[in-house]
This record gives sequence, structure tokens and C-alpha cells, in this order.
Amino acid sequence: MNASPDLRSGWVRTLRLMPPSLEDNTADADRLVSALKTELNTDSVSMDLDLLKRMPGLLRKSGFEIRCTLFRENGQWQVVSVDGPSSAKPPAGVAVDLGTSRVVVRLLDLTSGQTLSETAFDNPQIAVGPDVLARIHTADTSKGGEHLQKLIIDGLNINIERLCVECGLAPGDVHLMTVAGNTAMSHLFLGLEPRWIIREPYIPVVNRPGLVPAAKLGLDLNPSTRVKVFPNVGSYFGGDLIAGILFSGLNRSPDTAILVDVGTNAEVVLGNENWLVACAGAAGPALEGGVTDMGMMAGPGVIDTVAIDPESGDLVFHAIDEKAPVGICGSGLIDLAAQLFLAGMVDIRGKLVPDRCSERFRLIDELSAFELVPKEKSGSGEALTVGQADLDSLIRSKAAMFTILETITETVGITPDDLGAFHVAGTFGSFIKPQSAITVGMLPDLRLDRYHALGNSSLGGATLALTDPDCIEEIDRIRDRITYLELNVNQVFMNRFSAAKFLPHTDRGRFPSVPLPQK
Amino acid sequence: MNASPDLRSGWVRTLRLMPPSLEDNTADADRLVSALKTELNTDSVSMDLDLLKRMPGLLRKSGFEIRCTLFRENGQWQVVSVDGPSSAKPPAGVAVDLGTSRVVVRLLDLTSGQTLSETAFDNPQIAVGPDVLARIHTADTSKGGEHLQKLIIDGLNINIERLCVECGLAPGDVHLMTVAGNTAMSHLFLGLEPRWIIREPYIPVVNRPGLVPAAKLGLDLNPSTRVKVFPNVGSYFGGDLIAGILFSGLNRSPDTAILVDVGTNAEVVLGNENWLVACAGAAGPALEGGVTDMGMMAGPGVIDTVAIDPESGDLVFHAIDEKAPVGICGSGLIDLAAQLFLAGMVDIRGKLVPDRCSERFRLIDELSAFELVPKEKSGSGEALTVGQADLDSLIRSKAAMFTILETITETVGITPDDLGAFHVAGTFGSFIKPQSAITVGMLPDLRLDRYHALGNSSLGGATLALTDPDCIEEIDRIRDRITYLELNVNQVFMNRFSAAKFLPHTDRGRFPSVPLPQK
Repeated sequence: MNASPDLRSGWVRTLRLMPPSLEDNTADADRLVSALKTELNTDSVSMDLDLLKRMPGLLRKSGFEIRCTLFRENGQWQVVSVDGPSSAKPPAGVAVDLGTSRVVVRLLDLTSGQTLSETAFDNPQIAVGPDVLARIHTADTSKGGEHLQKLIIDGLNINIERLCVECGLAPGDVHLMTVAGNTAMSHLFLGLEPRWIIREPYIPVVNRPGLVPAAKLGLDLNPSTRVKVFPNVGSYFGGDLIAGILFSGLNRSPDTAILVDVGTNAEVVLGNENWLVACAGAAGPALEGGVTDMGMMAGPGVIDTVAIDPESGDLVFHAIDEKAPVGICGSGLIDLAAQLFLAGMVDIRGKLVPDRCSERFRLIDELSAFELVPKEKSGSGEALTVGQADLDSLIRSKAAMFTILETITETVGITPDDLGAFHVAGTFGSFIKPQSAITVGMLPDLRLDRYHALGNSSLGGATLALTDPDCIEEIDRIRDRITYLELNVNQVFMNRFSAAKFLPHTDRGRFPSVPLPQK
Repeated sequence: MNASPDLRSGWVRTLRLMPPSLEDNTADADRLVSALKTELNTDSVSMDLDLLKRMPGLLRKSGFEIRCTLFRENGQWQVVSVDGPSSAKPPAGVAVDLGTSRVVVRLLDLTSGQTLSETAFDNPQIAVGPDVLARIHTADTSKGGEHLQKLIIDGLNINIERLCVECGLAPGDVHLMTVAGNTAMSHLFLGLEPRWIIREPYIPVVNRPGLVPAAKLGLDLNPSTRVKVFPNVGSYFGGDLIAGILFSGLNRSPDTAILVDVGTNAEVVLGNENWLVACAGAAGPALEGGVTDMGMMAGPGVIDTVAIDPESGDLVFHAIDEKAPVGICGSGLIDLAAQLFLAGMVDIRGKLVPDRCSERFRLIDELSAFELVPKEKSGSGEALTVGQADLDSLIRSKAAMFTILETITETVGITPDDLGAFHVAGTFGSFIKPQSAITVGMLPDLRLDRYHALGNSSLGGATLALTDPDCIEEIDRIRDRITYLELNVNQVFMNRFSAAKFLPHTDRGRFPSVPLPQK
């Protein structure tokens, strides 16, 4: 028995077994298991009855040379599929970022670890409830949970099949699946009652779901396919963040670094190879909805970059896909706020200054507004304006984010300057320009090269678990090492929050790189 | 968390968990798993998705005090059921002796280990083929294997349901099941291809089937019920024998002892706490059918005891249930042969001596026969006779058995006198009288108190695995320690066989306790 050395590091192993003889009459399955135990240096390898049934034919047809796809949980290896070594189709894996709003599915070749294709779709549960809370309440009704589970499973089945067909594969060729989602989404996906997640003392059904047979979830994949749902730390710290930490490498970093993920929620993880501390933006009622209510999602015609010449006041912008502008996304709004501030068009409280904004200043229903795009240049046929309320909301958001960062760093006794790297994850993180976020005082004034946009870190982590078996134990280690910091919204916190509600901050000395605004 | 000490030794544990709080927000399932890890002193406890789904309701309804049924394989504990501590119905288990001809099912209360009820039925696969070979050939045909599996599963479902109803339980209350059968029967039960069992080099699909979900086999038990199928050593040494060894205690005995199981086959295991050597009577073609072709199965009206007054030649017998005699079973036939020999009515070759048999001697179709019961006393309306051919067959059987015993003991360098105990298992073993078996030279001339009738040792072993968790690892240890001795039917063996074809043996010195026959 020997293994192809180039495949040693993945979930797929090719083995040549000694054929049975009168001298060695070990059973077919035990022969394979024994070879795998040697190959994998483990004493725990098991397989399903379905695989046992196919074993005699498979081994004899392939001359006892076979390719196995494996998975592991708690040090226990599971044989998930077995075929001949020269099968035309590679064993495939699917990594899923199970977002509350968006679901991203990536199809991989497990032999090479290469991405074959990828797609994204709106979480079909939106039809039932736009947010986690509404869905949990629906799950509480009769058949509500089953319906919610069916919606997401159907959505995954359709999209996985499409990806497979596109790559000349069938869903039956998918042998492994990883799913990273927040605790509520993971529960709804597994068909588990999310009722107690939102009720004090906020208890999930399970923290470590382990490897679940895909068939038990209604997924139309191979009958033996196993699904790894990333573990959660609790109701408010889900598998998506564990995946994000894994992808960021925070847990392996000798220097203390930080990971900020702004999705439906804003979560912050601080740590290094020795410790990890986390907190989530939804932890304090003062912050609810505060961090995330910033503009629309990125898409064609959405403004993601704004620049204002501080001298002339001329404004230029970039709309995605060079389409006529239809709105502004979060990162665009931060750009705008930063530029307005530097041009003196908003004051340090974030209030529009009418005479500095001049002809772009509007009063809509007696509320101040800034005209970003006039009617004739807009893709919607209406002028695009940003109201004072939008700016106020942004100020609260950025103040909340900064306060969280200040609180978490202070709690562990460091300052932002001590951070070796600052990872910004999520769609938001891919678009945000650190310079603008610093200018408005949302992110600390670090050297720009310390900022790293991770993109979809949940999907990245889910992908790593499919390509690097060593990550499996790392996931549990990350989970176990996290100290979850309950954000105590006390007077100290509120004082910090108030001080952060200025541009960039009441304490200007914290933002030495931000120029003084135009007078 | 604490455990009821009286239940510590079984598969059922009652635990009181700390209810969750803001300080301890561990998820429901992980809370239980963590308590079980402490209670069981293990780091591997898992449970099915079905149980996870019911966990929040179960824990809250029972005030976080719960009763779990567990099972274990390879050191990995599986939570099989969870309910409130005061549920009216006990978790039940089913032990099965899966015989080629007869299937015995025992229902147990897992909390007390007590047998609740028991039943036996003919293996429904007999309809397809009377013996292992015929069934394996049928399994080779299209849908043949599925049909055979359905026959036995249906038979089990019907009988288990009947047992449950009889005891005020439902099949859904059965949480654990153990099955001890020969390798072919285990394969057909699991729906595994038995094709290669009977083809050189005689390879089973699996040696250690592990814990199989009952639902995957079509068993209508609780959805999470696990079935342990006893492991086999190879195609000709099955789980029924492993169960028998476990039940006999051979594997824990400081003195070397022997276990002989005469069922459809005759198997012999010799050993002690340090080593185990086994061989099976079907191993040599000269012995095929040789050991077992002895009379009918025990039942009402079947003669199981025969005594002949050596002086007067008067014959008395006992028929089961005191019914009018209809035939003779194996142990009755051995009794008869011993008594005929001692009375001088057969010679040392086992041939009927006409003038000694006097009026009981018959010629039927020109062949000698002995009239056991005259027509007028018979329950069948016909005289019951035992032909010379029956006696010849018995002589071959007993010679085969003795030769196997002689060979296996000599192989390990001991004599029968060194045996601390001689266990005789199987229905045959329950009826056989060691004195008669010694007289005909079937069993060695040991002190009678060394002989132990074990009864149904397969069922006994299957029961032990349901009542004593320590047995689970013992089963694998037994399996791994067995050296299977391929009976080499060479000239030495055939010489021994020839020498053993006399009553009691050509070497009379080996049977000092057997009186000289009546002259």
C-alpha cells in the first residue's frame, strides 16, 4: 500500500491495497480501513453501510487500487466515498457562506483544491422574514422551522446542481460540504429549533454540530456526503466568524491582530496565536442596527467612491460597472462623509454646513440634504440625495465601531498602535477605503499597509476546511480559545461613544494623519 | 451533575445538568455531551441530528434532569436516546441470536438488565434456501440479496413488535440491539454481498460492522436505535461464536478451557485469558455434514433420553413433554448408541449385533435396523427405528468431533486432561449427556463436573453486550486474539479419524471410565 505523495495533504487519498489471499483473508472493508489507518496515522476510521455495500464490487473492479474521499471530526476519520483511481470525474466539495441575506456557494475539485465555479443567491428565507429575529419567530410557529429549512435547502440544491452541471459534474459527485453561517442560520439549515437563541440566557441547541450526513438535511448530494457546519461560540458568535478567523490567520499570528467583520452585524475579534477575544456589535442595545444601516448593497450603478476637491468643491464619483448612478453603498457613504468633512461641507458633528455645500444643499421636508447626483445624471430619473439623517446614522455607526474597537483593545490592555494587522472582512471590507474610514474616525489611524481587505472570509474559511485537513482541528481550537466579551454598555462605554460621535473624534490627537478641514 | 450510582454499570445513565445561565451559555447538546464526557470519563460522545432536534424541548420539559441510553464502539460513545428521568417506559434492548435455521429474540429492560420476554422463530430465509450455500447463491441473483434481507428484517420486525406489545412497550422503545450470527447470516442481515464468502480466498465484505443505525436496515425501531452486529474473524468464524466465547468466559479464564458449539456447524474454541485458538468442523471436506446429521430437532414427542438395562436388555426412554414418541434427537441418539454399545447390541465398529438385539433387530430394505419404539406405542402410527446408516453417520460424526478435539489440543501442546472446563453450547449442548458422549467416544473422558452446558451461548453473548458495557471492548479483544486454525485434513488427521471410528476408540486407554460392554 502506498499513497500518491502529491495528494497527502488533502481529503482525497489514493491507495493500492494488497489483494486478499488465503494467507490474508481480512474482509474488504477492514482491509481498506487498516490501510487508511496506516496512511493517516490514526486508529479511528469508519464508513457508512452504503459504502460497505459497494465495497466488494469497487475493490475487485479497480484491482484493489482505489481513491477515497475522507473527512474528519474530533480526530475520527470518515470514509465518504470510494472509487477507482482513474475515474474521469474528480471528487468535488462545496463551500457555503450561509449569510442571512446572501448565500455564496463555491464548487471545488477536492483532488487539486482548485475552485471550479462559484455562485451567489439571496437567502430564500428572506421571503419569510428579512432578518434573523423575524425568521426565529416564524420558526416558532407550527411547521415554520421545517418551511425555513426547506427554503434554504431547496436554494442550495438548485444552485449546487447548476454549478455542477456547468462543470460537467453531477450533485452526486459532491462528497464534502462545509457551511459557515451565524448561529441562527446554522440552526435553521440543520432544522434545529432556534427559539432559545434569542431568549435569555440565549442558548443554542448545539455549539458543535459535527459532521452531518447530507441526506439527513434533504441535500441531493452523494448518499454518504458529510456536511461540516462550523461550530458557534454562542448565540451571538457563529460559525461564520470562526471561519473568518481561520481565513484571516489571526489564530496563527505571533503579533496581535484584529479582524472586523461588518455584515448584517459588526463583529470584532482581537488576538494572536495565544489568545482570542471577540465581541459583537449587536451586544449592546444602544448599537442595535447602528453599525450596518449604511446605504444600499453594492451593485451596478451603485456609487462606491466619492472625491471632492477641497479647493473648488467639485465632486466626482465612481458608480459600479460604470452605470448611471442609482444609489450609494456603505463604503461610498464613508467616502462621501470623509470628503464632505475635509471640504468643510459638514462640521465636526457631521452636520451639513449649508453655505459650504452651496447649490448642493437641499431642504427636503424641512430636513437638510446633500445632492450627490442631479436628476439629469441619475440612473433613477430622480436626484440622488443624502439626508442629514443618513449622515447622523453614519456618525452613530462609525462611533459605535470605534467605541467597540477602543473598548476591546483597552480590555486586553493594548492600543490600536500595537496591532500588527487590521483585517476587514465582508463585502463592506472589500469596498471600504481605509483612508476614508480613518478620516471619519471609524477605524483607528494606523499605517494604511496594516489594513487588509479579506473579502468573503466566511467563504474563505469554509474553503480552507475543504482543502486543508489540518484546519479541522484548528477550527475547534479557535472555537475553544475565544473569550467572548459581553459589551457592557455602561457609563464608560457611553462616554466613549459620545466622544466618538465627532469627525474624526473629540480627541483629534488620535488621528494625526487626518488633515484639518478646509476653512 | 451527578449520576445514579446504581445505574453506573449499564448503558442507561441519569444525569442532572446545571441549567443554562448568562454565565454558562453552553448549548443544550454540548451541555449534555460535556456532562456525559465527565460521567463516562471519555472524550468522545456524539449524537444524531434527530436527537439534537428534540434536545431543547426534552431538557426544558424535564428541568435538565434526563435519562440517556448510550452505546459504544471503538471507544466512541453514541447517545441513542434521551428522555425524562421518570418516564413510565424503560429503554429497551433486543438481543438476537441470528441462526441459519432458528432466530431467537430476547427483549430486555436496559435499566435493570432483566429479560422481559423472549421468542424464537424459523429463519424466514429458509423459504429461499435451507442452508448458507443456497442463500448465498440466491443473493448472487438480481434482487436476491435484497429479498433475503427483507425476509429476515420483516421476521424480526414482526417478532420484536409482538414481544414489545406483550410487555406494554412499543418498538420505538427499543434503543439498542445486538445481533450474533454467523458471517453469512450477518451479511444477509446487513444487506451486504455474501458472494466472496464462499469463493477462494473466502473474503467477507466486513469483519467489524460497527454500530449500524436500525433505520438503515429497515428495522421499525426508534429512529436513533443502533444495532451492534458481532464481528467475525473470517468467512467461517462468525459473530455467533464471538458471542459464545464472551458468554462462556473462556477469554477471562486463567485455566485453559474449551468451548464446543454444535449448531448447523461444529465449532471448537480452545483458550484462556492469554490466547484463543479456534477451528470449525466444516473446514475439511471429509467432515462436511458429518458432525450435525444426527436426528431431528428437539421438540414435543422427541426422544431425548434412552436407557437399556445391560442385563435384561429392557429399554426405557423419555420423550419431550411426555408425549407419545415421534422421533429421536441428536442427544437421544448418542444415548441410544452408548446404551446399545454397553449392552453389547452394537459392536465396537457401531454395527448392530442381530442376536443381541433379538426381537428389536429388523431388516428394512435389506438393511439392519433397531426398533426403538414399536408401532403400537409410537406417536406417528409407525414403528420408530434407527437404521445402521444412522448409526454409521453418528460414528462418523463422533469420530470427526473427537478428531477435531484431539487435533486442536495437540496443536497447542496440551491433552484433554489439561482442560479446566469443557463448555458445550447450542441446543445440542443443552440436551447432550456428557456420560453418553464419553461412552461413544465423542467427547474426551473428563470428570463430569468439568462439562458445562451453556445453552444458547450466542444469545447469551448478545445479551451480555446489552447489559455490560465493558463487554464491548472485550468483544473486539476476543476477535483480535483468535488464531483460526485451518484444519489440515492430511494423512495424520485421517489416521486419527479412522482410529476414532470405534466405540469409544481403538485406544481404549483413553476412556478409562467407560465400562466394558456386556458380553
